[in-house]
Amino acid sequence: MISSIRLYFLGTGGSWPTPQRNTLSVGVRINDEAILFDCGETAQTSLMKSSLSLMRIKKIFITHFHGDHFLGLPGLIQTMSFYGRTEPLEIYGPIGASTVLGNLLSIGYYSLNFEMRIEELKGSGSIDFGDYSVAYAKASHTIPALCYALTEKDYAKLEESKIKELKVPRNLLEKIRKEGSARVNGKTINIEDISAGIRRGRKISYSGDTRRDESLLDLFKNSTVLIHESTGDKTNQSKVISYGHSTGKDAGIQARDSNTKKLILVHFSPRYNDIKPIVDEAKSIFPNVTAAEELMEMEVNIND
Amino acid sequence: MISSIRLYFLGTGGSWPTPQRNTLSVGVRINDEAILFDCGETAQTSLMKSSLSLMRIKKIFITHFHGDHFLGLPGLIQTMSFYGRTEPLEIYGPIGASTVLGNLLSIGYYSLNFEMRIEELKGSGSIDFGDYSVAYAKASHTIPALCYALTEKDYAKLEESKIKELKVPRNLLEKIRKEGSARVNGKTINIEDISAGIRRGRKISYSGDTRRDESLLDLFKNSTVLIHESTGDKTNQSKVISYGHSTGKDAGIQARDSNTKKLILVHFSPRYNDIKPIVDEAKSIFPNVTAAEELMEMEVNIND
Repeated sequence: MISSIRLYFLGTGGSWPTPQRNTLSVGVRINDEAILFDCGETAQTSLMKSSLSLMRIKKIFITHFHGDHFLGLPGLIQTMSFYGRTEPLEIYGPIGASTVLGNLLSIGYYSLNFEMRIEELKGSGSIDFGDYSVAYAKASHTIPALCYALTEKDYAKLEESKIKELKVPRNLLEKIRKEGSARVNGKTINIEDISAGIRRGRKISYSGDTRRDESLLDLFKNSTVLIHESTGDKTNQSKVISYGHSTGKDAGIQARDSNTKKLILVHFSPRYNDIKPIVDEAKSIFPNVTAAEELMEMEVNIND
Repeated sequence: MISSIRLYFLGTGGSWPTPQRNTLSVGVRINDEAILFDCGETAQTSLMKSSLSLMRIKKIFITHFHGDHFLGLPGLIQTMSFYGRTEPLEIYGPIGASTVLGNLLSIGYYSLNFEMRIEELKGSGSIDFGDYSVAYAKASHTIPALCYALTEKDYAKLEESKIKELKVPRNLLEKIRKEGSARVNGKTINIEDISAGIRRGRKISYSGDTRRDESLLDLFKNSTVLIHESTGDKTNQSKVISYGHSTGKDAGIQARDSNTKKLILVHFSPRYNDIKPIVDEAKSIFPNVTAAEELMEMEVNIND
């Protein structure tokens, strides 16, 4: 069972870093394990400055192989090894991932003490990790790229009065959750017998780099949090789109049309000294917008 | 003629970054051009925070291919291209440089607008760049590694009274410096005719990662500034040496025995919260020691 889901904005900037913003990387802590979406340069240093230990990271999902989304990997991996990691690390990415990451790990003089498991994701799909799944779909970008959505499994809300009435021992509750039923004093108790409805699992969607595209609404649908790129605003809209990106307005539309609860904007073009025009555009379409800041952390609240 | 030589400490830490110190990179500005010694992760961001424009960089000298000395290269190069660079960039490194840097530049989806000229340096030697030269020699490390020394050409001190007496036009002074002589009013004027001795060129030596080794004293000899690694102190001396590094004391000995003027310590092990024991060790051997700080800048004064 997942209790806490917490977001860590390790890098929030666009195609290259500035003194104010590093390139993109977002950590998600799910109970005791963590995953990363993208891993821009300096992600390891941001992790060290955050409250998320880099040793908790089990899986890294790369959206695509533009440098600002993955050049923090070799340094992070090397430091994990210096820290004494022996546990395997899973890295997921779009078509080409095996080649790119294979090349990346063959440069220089690594001597890693742990195994890298690289998985190349093709088309769209979903990977089941037990308490949560990660779905992926094709982004609309200039090179092969993915968007991701992490979804917590739906969760039965238990009813204390029914548990007591049926005398179900506490130590069987997780078993009934997982398997749907258990034998108690010679009788079968089903999850429905002790629950009062379903708590919908939290969902965190992550756009990486993409133009606004209706085909992504299914992936983003009913997100608790949608972390969406917003490279520019209406003043440079045609350029933004031609480079495979979204404006603030595009991000707002995707949040609104996917029935998202909260939109968090990232990947602001480094050409903007002031991102207010981008954020205002998104807010003109969708009310609940936050502009990510470096090292911002945020608890993802349980859905009602 | 070189007027100003200025140092920029872009990253001063050891094998992995900490929130306080980035991995190693030192910029040297020589009049209007700049070079880098090593290029650890985040060097580009440090450059943006410093007063040295990353567009001034013409040459990068990598000491060796442990990640903390070169993983800032791909991001820096990509950003140079985003900034519109068209001028070629020269990268120098030890044996294996062509392969490593070739691999590094073939990962992901680069589209560079400028040429990379990679030169692999074997053994020891010196490269003449006109107003200065860069010499290199084999470091004592665990993998192929180089130490470097940048030396300004010696410079004739001109004597105003002689210039006036011989009626040498101002616009011929540089020619006489460079070529040793010029024809003035039908007579040959030699550099000796208008000068009063020689100003010795400034010299900046850079150790990269190395054990203390007497064979390096020739490269470091008479340095104005010796930038030397100092990974640990006497409390972990045997480990420091077994990993191919120097203690503070080792750095002090190299400075003293090479007749260096000023020793600047870099590459402190990230295991040290307080580097004072390392710095004190160096100072016990050699008086003029500075511990490099992140983004420290320093003018290299003209030798008397």
